[in-house]
Amino acid sequence: MKKDIIQKEGLGTVETKYATFAEPPHEMVLESGAKLGPITLAYETYGELNKDKSNVVLIVHALSGDAHAAGWHDGDKHPGWWDNMIGPGKAFDTEKYFIICSNVIGGCKGSTGPASINPKTGKPYGLSFPLITIRDMVQAQKLLLDQMGIKKILAVAGGSMGGQQVLKWAIDYPEMVRSAIPIATTTRHTAQQIALNEVGRQAIMADPDWQGGDYYGKTIPARGLALARMIGHITYMSDKSMAEKFGRKLISKEKGGFDFSQDFEVENYLKYRGDSFVQRFDANSYLYITKALDYFDLAEDGKLTDALRKAKAKFLIIAFTSDWLYPTYQSKEIVKALKANDIDVSFCEVSSDYGHDAFLVEVEGQSRLIKHFLARVQKEIKA
Amino acid sequence: MKKDIIQKEGLGTVETKYATFAEPPHEMVLESGAKLGPITLAYETYGELNKDKSNVVLIVHALSGDAHAAGWHDGDKHPGWWDNMIGPGKAFDTEKYFIICSNVIGGCKGSTGPASINPKTGKPYGLSFPLITIRDMVQAQKLLLDQMGIKKILAVAGGSMGGQQVLKWAIDYPEMVRSAIPIATTTRHTAQQIALNEVGRQAIMADPDWQGGDYYGKTIPARGLALARMIGHITYMSDKSMAEKFGRKLISKEKGGFDFSQDFEVENYLKYRGDSFVQRFDANSYLYITKALDYFDLAEDGKLTDALRKAKAKFLIIAFTSDWLYPTYQSKEIVKALKANDIDVSFCEVSSDYGHDAFLVEVEGQSRLIKHFLARVQKEIKA
Repeated sequence: MKKDIIQKEGLGTVETKYATFAEPPHEMVLESGAKLGPITLAYETYGELNKDKSNVVLIVHALSGDAHAAGWHDGDKHPGWWDNMIGPGKAFDTEKYFIICSNVIGGCKGSTGPASINPKTGKPYGLSFPLITIRDMVQAQKLLLDQMGIKKILAVAGGSMGGQQVLKWAIDYPEMVRSAIPIATTTRHTAQQIALNEVGRQAIMADPDWQGGDYYGKTIPARGLALARMIGHITYMSDKSMAEKFGRKLISKEKGGFDFSQDFEVENYLKYRGDSFVQRFDANSYLYITKALDYFDLAEDGKLTDALRKAKAKFLIIAFTSDWLYPTYQSKEIVKALKANDIDVSFCEVSSDYGHDAFLVEVEGQSRLIKHFLARVQKEIKA
Repeated sequence: MKKDIIQKEGLGTVETKYATFAEPPHEMVLESGAKLGPITLAYETYGELNKDKSNVVLIVHALSGDAHAAGWHDGDKHPGWWDNMIGPGKAFDTEKYFIICSNVIGGCKGSTGPASINPKTGKPYGLSFPLITIRDMVQAQKLLLDQMGIKKILAVAGGSMGGQQVLKWAIDYPEMVRSAIPIATTTRHTAQQIALNEVGRQAIMADPDWQGGDYYGKTIPARGLALARMIGHITYMSDKSMAEKFGRKLISKEKGGFDFSQDFEVENYLKYRGDSFVQRFDANSYLYITKALDYFDLAEDGKLTDALRKAKAKFLIIAFTSDWLYPTYQSKEIVKALKANDIDVSFCEVSSDYGHDAFLVEVEGQSRLIKHFLARVQKEIKA
């Protein structure tokens, strides 16, 4: 009953669509020099494209996200991952904007990735899938928008890895991007961020079921992937949000404790999150996408100010006080580099205890900022 | 040559000693109610015990530490783990104090632990070893000191898990402990700290070579233990110290990158640290000791102020600005509870970029604090 009401108030039922492009011999050239094609991208759209196609907002997602950002899929218990931000009257208002949410290549949510069938062999790519970068993800999204006949984007927005795609969009296709909203993100992974990802990758590759990535149709490396997810999950929360959610609460054990099964609720929760992740994510995709995150360096080893000079978009940058995965100082580096280029940038550090996950849950603070920003951008374009 | 000079200036060659006690039928009763005995503790001593036995300083160690805190073992490339703090003229001055460093039970450095032979079966305990707590570690150390005829301790000092033992010493044996120096520590693990340990344990138990803990004499669960250590190692450093040590430096790869072998120096370093840890630490001990850390709650679910009321020692509490494993606010909670009890406490937050590892490397700052504190304690006892 409650779900019906929520559905009515929101976008209702939505469907994922699929576009295929870069068909041989016109494969897409990746940053590594390798070629990839054909490429399929999963995407969803919400709202209506206006006549002059000036109301397009592109939403890009984080590590484990997908094209299903808002509305409901038939039979699902939960709406899309950013449903609290996308819909009628919401931050990304579907009564004003035509929203496209595009999946990334390398993933496992309907787009071409390591689990896809390699047309040359008729078998899943596995580790023969080429390494992809954030640039490659964005290039594929550009081809998708080309196919849709879209030439300008009012705004591109996303949190975490989504924010990295936003930044790349702004400098790789500056004529196309009118405004950019990178949230809880960074221009390059630090040693600590690389280290945390590497432990996750090592956990997957240490799982004997991983089999060098050739496990499709066999037993999946469930324990390794669950471990990787557990590590990730700790970095998405804050010390404080974990303390508030779990503290030192014990789970009732019939055995009375003092063994190595889960004692604390937080252990149980992490195990549950790890195990459920395995049902919905491909271990090889986890390897490819975390590697893309680690390789990402917007400045390409040079100065960030030089890299951002290419951008022509207006920026709204959002960080969260308790985000220790992509701490605020990393957002401030972007602000500083944009200001040095005299680029229009608004910055807000939203106070939140939710850690990195704040970009998924701090609806009110983000909505106010984004609504005003988008309205201003639209007004200034018309003026 | 350089090593010889360092050895001459310091303690020179030292040896680990072993004491055995709690022989059946006088086993030690653990916090869980289980009995353990006989118990062997490895320990080292530096300096001379004075006539009235009033110059004893007990040093207790962190997760992967051992009894070898200072001086050199024959043939070793490195001195003991706190050699920069213990020796003639150093923070713990061996010309003034008789230093005892005791290993912990549950470990694998010469003291009774899961790798020890269970006298009842003639085989290694493995997971039949009872779960131990910080209280149990301290109780065993008390039995060691009893055997040595020591009735008063001028100071008990240690960092990280050592700090937890220090706190437990101060409230379990208040008449014995004249002063306490808990460094970079906490009175109870938060959900985040438990979560990080649990991921390490899961990594070990997911290794097929772990075999339910019954791997002695067979292949050890090397990959799982290395993973656990890698996670730990990230938490011992700070974002900044990792950035300064590694940044995004790449290791030269003949293959030219774009694969899943180590690309970044930080990945290589972590892998190296993980792999070398496996040579010197037992996976089951890692399980037991991290569990002891997680169970630790000085207040035993009550008020910290009430728990610390029992203490009669003077306290010096040291925290480090960039320690995110045991952040300063956790040390401040101890200070607050001690002050509420009108207990003599000095507190210093040392500015350092080294993260949790600072207690091992910030020699100058710590030495000044500790020297003055110990001198004051000795003076006030005599007065």
